[in-house]
This record gives sequence, structure tokens and C-alpha cells, in this order.
Amino acid sequence: MAITTVVFDVNETLSDLTPLHRRFGEIGAPDWSGPYWFATTLREGIALAAGGELRPFAEIGRETAAQLLRRLGVRWADARARELLEAFLELPVHPDVHDGVAALRAAGLRLVTLSNGATAVAEKLLSDHGLRGQFDAVLSVEDAGLWKPARAPYEYALRTCGVAASEAVMVAVHPWDLHGAGRVGMATAWLDRAGETWPGHLDPPTHTVRALPELAPRLA
Amino acid sequence: MAITTVVFDVNETLSDLTPLHRRFGEIGAPDWSGPYWFATTLREGIALAAGGELRPFAEIGRETAAQLLRRLGVRWADARARELLEAFLELPVHPDVHDGVAALRAAGLRLVTLSNGATAVAEKLLSDHGLRGQFDAVLSVEDAGLWKPARAPYEYALRTCGVAASEAVMVAVHPWDLHGAGRVGMATAWLDRAGETWPGHLDPPTHTVRALPELAPRLA
Repeated sequence: MAITTVVFDVNETLSDLTPLHRRFGEIGAPDWSGPYWFATTLREGIALAAGGELRPFAEIGRETAAQLLRRLGVRWADARARELLEAFLELPVHPDVHDGVAALRAAGLRLVTLSNGATAVAEKLLSDHGLRGQFDAVLSVEDAGLWKPARAPYEYALRTCGVAASEAVMVAVHPWDLHGAGRVGMATAWLDRAGETWPGHLDPPTHTVRALPELAPRLA
Repeated sequence: MAITTVVFDVNETLSDLTPLHRRFGEIGAPDWSGPYWFATTLREGIALAAGGELRPFAEIGRETAAQLLRRLGVRWADARARELLEAFLELPVHPDVHDGVAALRAAGLRLVTLSNGATAVAEKLLSDHGLRGQFDAVLSVEDAGLWKPARAPYEYALRTCGVAASEAVMVAVHPWDLHGAGRVGMATAWLDRAGETWPGHLDPPTHTVRALPELAPRLA
């Protein structure tokens, strides 16, 4: 069946976390703190999903940031952690996003987001960068009860869009997210901006692109 | 109901990963690589559990190590990743483990392990350090079909031991593991060797100890 609907991950896929990672450095944490913090935040949220539960991204992110900052001996760890999470509301989008989104819309595709983060964060990101009008819906795992890559959020997005899995493609930078989408029958597109190697323990993606504008021609 | 059975996590709870983390440095990766690698390995394995699947720890660990080493520009990343995983077979136990295990046995408790890693790794760790005889069973999530903190592995351990959840206590350094055990009704003991703060997004543990020998008196 032809693809009619493109479901976008948000954090790192549309947004660029580099300024947030830099903030860790500005408060005295080492360079690797940002990526380490993001990996542990995902581990915690996904661990709750594995047990059938959900806590909001911002809450888990604050807890993991505060723990990391305390370990590193950074002062006022709780206050600093709150500030770091606020930086999520001021992120840029990657430079390939505008052209890629325009090409997908020009191809007649419907675009939605499905984030492990809050709807408000994705809404603000898209609005700040003049992209909100290109997206039909901004969906969050919070309405599905579990974080990706549990099945429920993908099935929730398909149900909300009123499409079969075979009509939808999930776009993400994270292989574990695409593996989860593939397991419910969606097509998958790996946005591999850095030119990495697909991990062998996960199902390979349907499409691999180095920049978002390459995707629309692949789906034609 | 009185506690009769103590279920131990293995990696970082019994074993000390410091030599493994040092190996990352020896092959030219920065200091933070070991902890970052371990966090991403857990994220990947738990992500599969959230989607109802299981891959072996060693396979996922090799993939995540190779990806990290490639990103860092370390040569022969795949071969180096294999070597790092082999280092799992030569780990020490933390210095508080022998006395703590002896005290629990002296209190008449039955001890078992339940690891997200392979049974063979836990068997070798316990044998190498003269501890195998103190444990009634060495259990792995591989026989339960999902990694912790999904419910299935805890329920598998209880079923295998023939005990009710209220008769068993889970011992671990990782809060997400204890949260999962608590959710199936087990008591939980946080082995908080570093004196950290319990994360607010998870259910608090039944017991908190700074070293394993403190646990037996708490369970009496």
C-alpha cells in the first residue's frame, strides 16, 4: 500500500540538542555529560515502559540530570537540572529539516509527530521555526500510556491518523525507535546524519537517508 | 510474610565494572566511555523488552561498543568491542560482597541471582570468587524472554524458587531494577555504595544499605 502518512520523532530527529549539551559544559560538567544524560533519561523512561508505566519526559530528565550533576560535584544540582530542562524549549531544528518537510508536503504526504517528550515541547519547536502549519497533528506518548518503543504509542498514532500501518512511515535518528515502529508493521526511514552503522541487533530500516530532503523521492 | 529468598542482580551489584571501564581507556577511548557504553547497552536491551523481545546481553553490548568506538575514531572497532565483552568474564566482585553473602547465608536465607546478562557470566563470576556454593540458583532473563525491568523475569525467578513475591527481596544497585521488582510485589534493597539520592520518578526501596553486610540484620 502507498505511504500516505509520515510520523516524525522529535528529539534529535527534528531538534538539534547541541545547545543543550553545551549548557552542561557552561555549568561546569564535562563535554560528554549531555549525551550521557540523554542516554540515561531514555533508559529510565523506556524501563518504565517495559514495566507498563509512564512518567513524563521532563520529570525523568530532571531526576537524571540532577543525579549526574550531583555525582560530578556541580553545585545547586536540582536548580541546574531544572534550567537544563527549560533549555528544551529553546532548541533549533537541524538545517535539513525545512527543505525535507517542504518536499514531503509537496509530495502530498500528511505529517505528524510522535515524541517521547511532551506535546507542548514539540508544539513550541515547530511554531518557533515556522513549521507548525506543515504538520497535521502533534502527538505524544503521554496519550498512549507508554514511551516508544513499546507497541502502544505507534498503534495510538496510527489509530489517531486513521491509517493502516502499511500506509505510514516512521522517521527517526534512533534505531531502537524505528525497530519498534517496524514491529507494528510501519515502514521506517533512518535519518542517519552522521553516517553510522545500523546496529545488528535490530531489524534494518526500510529506507536510510543522510539528510531529510532525500526522503520524499524515496517514498514516491 | 518473612523473607526467605534473596534475589541478586549481578552486573555492578556483585561485579565491579571498573576494570572493564579502564579497558576502554587502554584502547584510546575517553574515561567516560565505559559508563556511557553500559547505559546505552541497557537502553537498547530494555527497549527490546518494552517491545516484547529479547536479544542476548553480549550481542547488544558488542554492537553498542563497536558503534561508540567507531564514533570515537578508535581503530578495529569490531575486534576491540569483542575484546571488551570478553573482559566481562574476568571481573572482580565488590569488596563488601563476601561478608554480605556470608551474613545472609548465616541468617538462613536462600540466595539466587537474576541477571540481564548470560547465566555463564554469572556462573563464572561466582565460581572465580569462591561464591558459587552460597547460591542455590543462577537465573538469567534469557529463560524469561524479556530483560528486567519487565515483569516476566521477576515472576520467572519467583516461580523457579517456588516462593511468593512477599517472601523475596531483590538486591541491586540500579533503582530501575528495584522499581520493577517492587511492582510485582517483592521487597527491595538498594545497595547504594556511593551514597546517592533515590530518583523521585521511581517507587522508593524497602531497604537502603551502603554495603552488603548491612542487609542481613535488616531482614531479620
